[in-house]
Amino acid sequence: MPTNPDSHIIVREVGLRDGLQSIATILPTASKLAWCEREFAAGVSEIEVGSFVPPKLLPQMADTADVLVAALARCPGLTATVLVPNLKGAERGAAAGAKKLNFVMSASASHNWANVRRTVDDSLAEFERVVAFSHGLPTHERPVVSGGLATSFGCSIEGNIDEARVLALAVRLAELGAEEVVLADTVGYGNPAAVRRLFEAVRRELGKLPLAAHFHDTRGLGLPNVVAALDVGIIRFDASLGGLGGCPYAPGASGNIVMEDLVFLLESMGHTTSVDLAALLEVRRYVQQLLPGEALRGSIGQAGLPKNFRSLVAARQGGR
Amino acid sequence: MPTNPDSHIIVREVGLRDGLQSIATILPTASKLAWCEREFAAGVSEIEVGSFVPPKLLPQMADTADVLVAALARCPGLTATVLVPNLKGAERGAAAGAKKLNFVMSASASHNWANVRRTVDDSLAEFERVVAFSHGLPTHERPVVSGGLATSFGCSIEGNIDEARVLALAVRLAELGAEEVVLADTVGYGNPAAVRRLFEAVRRELGKLPLAAHFHDTRGLGLPNVVAALDVGIIRFDASLGGLGGCPYAPGASGNIVMEDLVFLLESMGHTTSVDLAALLEVRRYVQQLLPGEALRGSIGQAGLPKNFRSLVAARQGGR
Repeated sequence: MPTNPDSHIIVREVGLRDGLQSIATILPTASKLAWCEREFAAGVSEIEVGSFVPPKLLPQMADTADVLVAALARCPGLTATVLVPNLKGAERGAAAGAKKLNFVMSASASHNWANVRRTVDDSLAEFERVVAFSHGLPTHERPVVSGGLATSFGCSIEGNIDEARVLALAVRLAELGAEEVVLADTVGYGNPAAVRRLFEAVRRELGKLPLAAHFHDTRGLGLPNVVAALDVGIIRFDASLGGLGGCPYAPGASGNIVMEDLVFLLESMGHTTSVDLAALLEVRRYVQQLLPGEALRGSIGQAGLPKNFRSLVAARQGGR
Repeated sequence: MPTNPDSHIIVREVGLRDGLQSIATILPTASKLAWCEREFAAGVSEIEVGSFVPPKLLPQMADTADVLVAALARCPGLTATVLVPNLKGAERGAAAGAKKLNFVMSASASHNWANVRRTVDDSLAEFERVVAFSHGLPTHERPVVSGGLATSFGCSIEGNIDEARVLALAVRLAELGAEEVVLADTVGYGNPAAVRRLFEAVRRELGKLPLAAHFHDTRGLGLPNVVAALDVGIIRFDASLGGLGGCPYAPGASGNIVMEDLVFLLESMGHTTSVDLAALLEVRRYVQQLLPGEALRGSIGQAGLPKNFRSLVAARQGGR
């Protein structure tokens, strides 16, 4: 079922995790917080602030607990999330007050091994432990547990990933207690036809369970894939400011879809995002100052808003 | 009605006109021909080789008649087209053997004035003369007459362009004898929702008359707009190799959609284009050598084809 033309779409910032983990610069905690606060103020209500992985592997993420605690204190109402690959990460995330734990595993066995040094079955067993841990917490401390499937649309190591396999894993995550399932095109292999097929199939099996899309723009199909996902009712999208991001274990996989361009796409089409695009472009400029050595991507950041954008949005707001 | 999943899609190269007119370099006739020949050999069967406008305004296009005559001689079967803004251009195009005359006018009165120094009514009257001229030619010399509407999705001078106005102009062009109607997003103001609405409305009025889309990627929505147009049955798309292009009279309007990325999008989705993408990427490298000072755009040109691309295409070809 297509997304209604005037639906509210949830855009989630993952640049503080997916972006910062893939660049050499280690952003100081205070800078991460300032980015987080400003983007929250611009209207982005869900932000993945970091990941709980061994600091030896990703020193950029060593301060995730500090960022999380401070972000929650400074941004009341923020859905502050963290990526966790295992139970230990989940425990650390919950202890620091994460609103949502984004558990990640790969549909591709080779990618899962490269990324988290586990077989896919072992990752599923670990996910079960994460859910059990979460269920053991007092209700008011219990984070939402999300199950993410990296390389759902193909793998730079294995090539094709069978859609039936991805579907079965999504169903398994739901059976094990996922409160949200994320299909991730980690390496930019997806296309609008595959996106429609796979999300439709997963939706058919999982009913009303929240589904989310995490697309990379490596081969230019990130936003076309968003259009396809909207067509089949998906309303949750990950993106990163300036397209910062990639995957350190997936060669050539540069770039999440660009948050500013995503918001522009959605708002132009008539959807609402609660994001103030002009304010978001200010945050982009700020993040560019924080990361002077990084080339931010994005069309709206370069070309600016079209002359008719304000009138389009105003007309819609007047109509409500 | 959506395009069938395995439809043949016609991709048309406009970089030799829309691209070369917007850069300072004047490419020699022999280089234009070499580009044309190589891209035709890679499977692109319709190429706009230039425009018949005053050489004083666009010296880059002064050799269009020569390019046209030679391209027709060297590329048997090529649908060689030229852009014409008036009767004089149409006469020159037909004399040089053009297979199709791409008449252009703007839906925006201000843009039409800036571009061709005519009112919209005068352009319609001129189009009528072009059709009459074409009808007066012997059948075997008669080029197809296409009617193009620039700024159909918004104008960098006027802002919004009323969709009813664009629809009425499209209908008028058809009534006057257009054998094809092109809606052009000259300045990158379109979005997938507007693309669906407008093309659906035009299709409803014009029935089986061929419709084509000419999108610019200025704000990152070029390929998302292609996905939307496919959804409503459009199967003809303009693009330029390396995204070369823009409009000299529309500030900020840089970049046609990228031919390589368009072909990648379409072939990944299951459509056929008759284009050999690996060969097309060779042509891109060749054109980059011809234009060393120009930054070509495009994701596939940078990231390369994904590992599963050949197997996707091969599986499809095996199925036929």
